[in-house]
Amino acid sequence: MGVTSLSLDNPVFSAFVTYAVLVILKTMIMSFFTAYQRMSNKAFSNEEDVASFKGGKKFEVIRYHPAVERVRRCHQNDLENVIPFVLLGLLYVASGPSLWAALLHFRIFTVTRFLHTLIYLNGVRQPARALSFLSGVAVNISMAVAVLGKGTF
Amino acid sequence: MGVTSLSLDNPVFSAFVTYAVLVILKTMIMSFFTAYQRMSNKAFSNEEDVASFKGGKKFEVIRYHPAVERVRRCHQNDLENVIPFVLLGLLYVASGPSLWAALLHFRIFTVTRFLHTLIYLNGVRQPARALSFLSGVAVNISMAVAVLGKGTF
Amino acid sequence: MGVTSLSLDNPVFSAFVTYAVLVILKTMIMSFFTAYQRMSNKAFSNEEDVASFKGGKKFEVIRYHPAVERVRRCHQNDLENVIPFVLLGLLYVASGPSLWAALLHFRIFTVTRFLHTLIYLNGVRQPARALSFLSGVAVNISMAVAVLGKGTF
Repeated sequence: MGVTSLSLDNPVFSAFVTYAVLVILKTMIMSFFTAYQRMSNKAFSNEEDVASFKGGKKFEVIRYHPAVERVRRCHQNDLENVIPFVLLGLLYVASGPSLWAALLHFRIFTVTRFLHTLIYLNGVRQPARALSFLSGVAVNISMAVAVLGKGTF
Repeated sequence: MGVTSLSLDNPVFSAFVTYAVLVILKTMIMSFFTAYQRMSNKAFSNEEDVASFKGGKKFEVIRYHPAVERVRRCHQNDLENVIPFVLLGLLYVASGPSLWAALLHFRIFTVTRFLHTLIYLNGVRQPARALSFLSGVAVNISMAVAVLGKGTF
Repeated sequence: MGVTSLSLDNPVFSAFVTYAVLVILKTMIMSFFTAYQRMSNKAFSNEEDVASFKGGKKFEVIRYHPAVERVRRCHQNDLENVIPFVLLGLLYVASGPSLWAALLHFRIFTVTRFLHTLIYLNGVRQPARALSFLSGVAVNISMAVAVLGKGTF
């Protein structure tokens, strides 16, 4: 198989899987940050969760807690950007980029996405979050353009 | 082609596509459960939906209805877990696992995800939902680790 | 390699990458529509965003603005439908459909998804949005069924 295959024989794919897994794991960790914030703030969305964490008493669910919602917005932003990265990345690998160009895309995305989470969860002042977000978007658009140049209609 | 290829000649991929499609369809069905709850509770988010279902009169949109939001949280949890499963699963198949190990991963995830939905929509008491959620996460992490062991930086 | 491979040698895959990239880019653009609505309506979710856009003064965050939430619901609907399309599409390509059938699926989904966004953002009266949504779902289910017919358990 050639350099465009979706197989570990292809060094571009072999690198892609590592970065893809790292950003997917980072996204999944947000669930646990949310759970932690819900427990430490006693802010649950479901009656059965309230019952389980408050000694069986029937407290009210809390629809909005700032600390919980901040983690959830960060998680949502991951879904909106990391999933497109992995999907576009797969197609980009199949389009046969040079290893050098591909690593540049994968590394910039991965680093700026981890930074985005640190910045978001700590409420660092703007434009820190905007810049880390836009870096990831730029990588995704660059991969999208490369793929469009190879596809057909 | 070898056992690692993303093709139906590979029995691992051939099994993966079945389980991946089942959990994606399960996720998509949530849209219809949401629509059903919106209609039966007359709880719409958009003015044009209110107009269409309430005889053209201008009722107010309802921003929050408990029955609607429960389905939506369940759908969101699917997006946060099923999409990573399919993406990690694709990369995992390419990493060349044994059919036995792969089937174990795919089946545990699929069964616990269907259980998760049943448990969530019926508000079964904890830790039922937590356990079904964590089973899926464990499968995803196990596949992620397997892939990381084969990837390069 | 044969007609089922996930490689640009396969004309079905070659067409798929184009339509997949188009709908992913459409989904990503929603982030910028949201940002535009947040800025023009001064409706920010994060304190650091309020500080940056209102001259450093400590205004309150706004949890709900109708124009922002409409864009966000549209974005969410994309996540719930476009991501399944790309995932199912990849598996569908691997199942070896005819180019004619595949193009029909990809084109109907792409056209109706762009229409869905236009209809949603402009609040066109129902059943316009419902029909554009259901067309995309029908394409996804059709691809899912085709894949299930080729997979194993």
